[in-house]
Amino acid sequence: MKRILLLGAGRSASSLITYLLTNAEKENWHIKIGDISVTHLRPLLEPYTFAEAIVFDVHDEEQRAAEVGKVDLVISLLPAVFHIEVARECLMQEKHLITASYVTPAFLELHQEAQEKNLTILMESGLDPGIDHMSAMQIIRRIKAEGGKLTSFKSFTGGLVAPESDTNPWRYKFTWNPRNVVLAGQGTAKYIKNGAYKYIPYHQLFKRTDEFYVEGYGHFEGYANRDSLSYREPYGLLDIPTMLRGTLRRPGYCEAWNVFVQLGLTDDSYTLDSSEGMTNRSYLQAFLPPAAVDQSIEECLGLYLGIDPDGEVMQKLAWLGMFDDTPVELAGATPAQVLEKILKDKWTLSPGDKDMIVMQHLFEYELDGEKREITSSLVALGDDEIQTAMAKTVGLPVGILAKLMLQNRVSHRGVVIPIHPELYEPVLEELKEYGIDFVEQEILKVER
Amino acid sequence: MKRILLLGAGRSASSLITYLLTNAEKENWHIKIGDISVTHLRPLLEPYTFAEAIVFDVHDEEQRAAEVGKVDLVISLLPAVFHIEVARECLMQEKHLITASYVTPAFLELHQEAQEKNLTILMESGLDPGIDHMSAMQIIRRIKAEGGKLTSFKSFTGGLVAPESDTNPWRYKFTWNPRNVVLAGQGTAKYIKNGAYKYIPYHQLFKRTDEFYVEGYGHFEGYANRDSLSYREPYGLLDIPTMLRGTLRRPGYCEAWNVFVQLGLTDDSYTLDSSEGMTNRSYLQAFLPPAAVDQSIEECLGLYLGIDPDGEVMQKLAWLGMFDDTPVELAGATPAQVLEKILKDKWTLSPGDKDMIVMQHLFEYELDGEKREITSSLVALGDDEIQTAMAKTVGLPVGILAKLMLQNRVSHRGVVIPIHPELYEPVLEELKEYGIDFVEQEILKVER
Repeated sequence: MKRILLLGAGRSASSLITYLLTNAEKENWHIKIGDISVTHLRPLLEPYTFAEAIVFDVHDEEQRAAEVGKVDLVISLLPAVFHIEVARECLMQEKHLITASYVTPAFLELHQEAQEKNLTILMESGLDPGIDHMSAMQIIRRIKAEGGKLTSFKSFTGGLVAPESDTNPWRYKFTWNPRNVVLAGQGTAKYIKNGAYKYIPYHQLFKRTDEFYVEGYGHFEGYANRDSLSYREPYGLLDIPTMLRGTLRRPGYCEAWNVFVQLGLTDDSYTLDSSEGMTNRSYLQAFLPPAAVDQSIEECLGLYLGIDPDGEVMQKLAWLGMFDDTPVELAGATPAQVLEKILKDKWTLSPGDKDMIVMQHLFEYELDGEKREITSSLVALGDDEIQTAMAKTVGLPVGILAKLMLQNRVSHRGVVIPIHPELYEPVLEELKEYGIDFVEQEILKVER
Repeated sequence: MKRILLLGAGRSASSLITYLLTNAEKENWHIKIGDISVTHLRPLLEPYTFAEAIVFDVHDEEQRAAEVGKVDLVISLLPAVFHIEVARECLMQEKHLITASYVTPAFLELHQEAQEKNLTILMESGLDPGIDHMSAMQIIRRIKAEGGKLTSFKSFTGGLVAPESDTNPWRYKFTWNPRNVVLAGQGTAKYIKNGAYKYIPYHQLFKRTDEFYVEGYGHFEGYANRDSLSYREPYGLLDIPTMLRGTLRRPGYCEAWNVFVQLGLTDDSYTLDSSEGMTNRSYLQAFLPPAAVDQSIEECLGLYLGIDPDGEVMQKLAWLGMFDDTPVELAGATPAQVLEKILKDKWTLSPGDKDMIVMQHLFEYELDGEKREITSSLVALGDDEIQTAMAKTVGLPVGILAKLMLQNRVSHRGVVIPIHPELYEPVLEELKEYGIDFVEQEILKVER
């Protein structure tokens, strides 16, 4: 019997838990799930003799050491900030670890010791980062094997709502941590285009969008991620002239979101002087120039940022209640915290709402003197509010990688991300059984 | 005899040194000037028996203790970051201290001990902060004494060039630390208008300018300083509905500077990937969207930020050489460091150039049911490149305050700023002898 310890049983863990339970008997697994609160798990696990839930406090060193010591594999879906302690415990007790979080400099420091101890710390194993690496590397490797030379790689992912739940003018609802959505893109985005580095400051980010199209699902727009360049090395694309990674939204979202950026509403670096007494309207007003006599706040905003008073941007803002006298009811809040509260009231998934993950890779390459393009697109839909597309696309690859690890089919040691065929080939293959499958289109570009 | 230790003999100290030397005999002073380099001082001090220069290293604890121990008063014009060590030494050895720098939280911690030891740490005693406090407080106190109620206070200051040296399209040259000019305004500007807090994010700051006019010197524009509100308490204006402090430039400067802000060129938070191989032109291009085929960089910039290709903004940028193939020749530089280098090549004072300080306060108040306005304006011109307006307006108030202190005419103890009549009345009076004098205009506003 192989023993698995899963840490973190929040919303994004639902599909992983289902996967582990479904495969446990065949694979001869015992599954222990630890979280700070596990009451919601008890009815789910009751039918199974091979699964149990325990109250787990990651800050309790003694418990951490005891539980890690009992198992063959640790999986952590805890908030990213807690992973490093778990990883150090795993190293000490010589256990493999899987997470869906980014490799940080602190993890890189563990690489050599993990290699020496013949251990695998498998990171970036969820959706983005995760499926993006796996699906991109499969095509990059194929193009290279055919003798093709990659000239451009763009990769965009978005967590959105399914068409049937696409019911508000923003065409967006929170399917992920709202705070991260409010703060998304802060800092400077960096990418490379035709061999030249390009820098986009935050206040231009939502103006400089690209257009995307996915068959059957229509149009999207994308803005650049903060750092598009750090994967050039692991992907083997150090000399690629154009590389850009980014985030997808439905058309029109970025133009309206840019109003918040331009006003300064997404700033999380200072607290407002009187947020507790504010309404949505006075909050907005605090970021506008003093209005002229008889000028409405809508007119003032329209003139300030050049927004058509009858256009879609203004309608999106009005739909959110930005101009309403709704009390903010938050003391000592930053502008970003107030905005998050206003958005939460409107962008929360309703019962029955389904989410949707969209990922698209665009490759340009030269082969036998011809210019070619490949588009590879993934759309994953949530089944319901528990088995969301987000939970499936994060949890299933983690689950499949856990299975590979316990079947001793993973040979890479140290801190590893799933860019190797032994990892991505079986994961992408099994994901198809769950309807998580990329649609590929190849275009031969004819130069006119 | 009273002994003075002046620390810091850089360019901004020239007028203070002249003032101290001129007054030394009459006041029976001995003056010791310490700086990391003093060769430039030796010929200046040679004629005087009561003055000497020493090589002084503020990091040398032993020397610091020894020199502070020998004197009655310490004046520090060292970079602000070194003042706190000097202040602690002064406290320990029970010496008074004068600086022209801002009171920081670290200084506030010394307040009580300084009071208990009957010592004065007199801060913010130069131009801005310094003369701005003194001149504003004189009028605020007068208005209050007459029974007036202040409804609005705006105060703007700029370090500019004298009309005869106003010879480039920006109407600006560096008369102060270039790095501070490049980074000016970063963060969020905060002020109050008609009782409501207002917040201006950095990327809007240079669009939201106010207009100013100074008789004989023409028009100016001003942008808000980061924090306009912290002086409400010391000024006794806690209930004032409108208060705004800011920085003056000549009209047109802010619109053109805003191009740099919008592009992201003033960002000092990350280094460019290849600054050593850049030219001015390729540096600019790195912040522009990819140009269309046959589109010039000028056209691309014009379209991106809505700049008239034949307008004054484009002329200002061209005059700086932003579109030239001049090599940047800086390795591992931030965007802001590259911009600073480009500007330094063009904005440096030429031999014979004179600088100009402009300060304007605008007060609105109600008295006997009438609405009134007072405008108080200062223009100070440099004599030459040594006795600059900046050196005079920073150094002379410090020198006069030093004299008051050694004449035992300063009764306030602790960490003090010059908002008290015993400080500002004699300083403002004596400054007139040096041509540093405010021109006041009072207007009775008639409501139509």
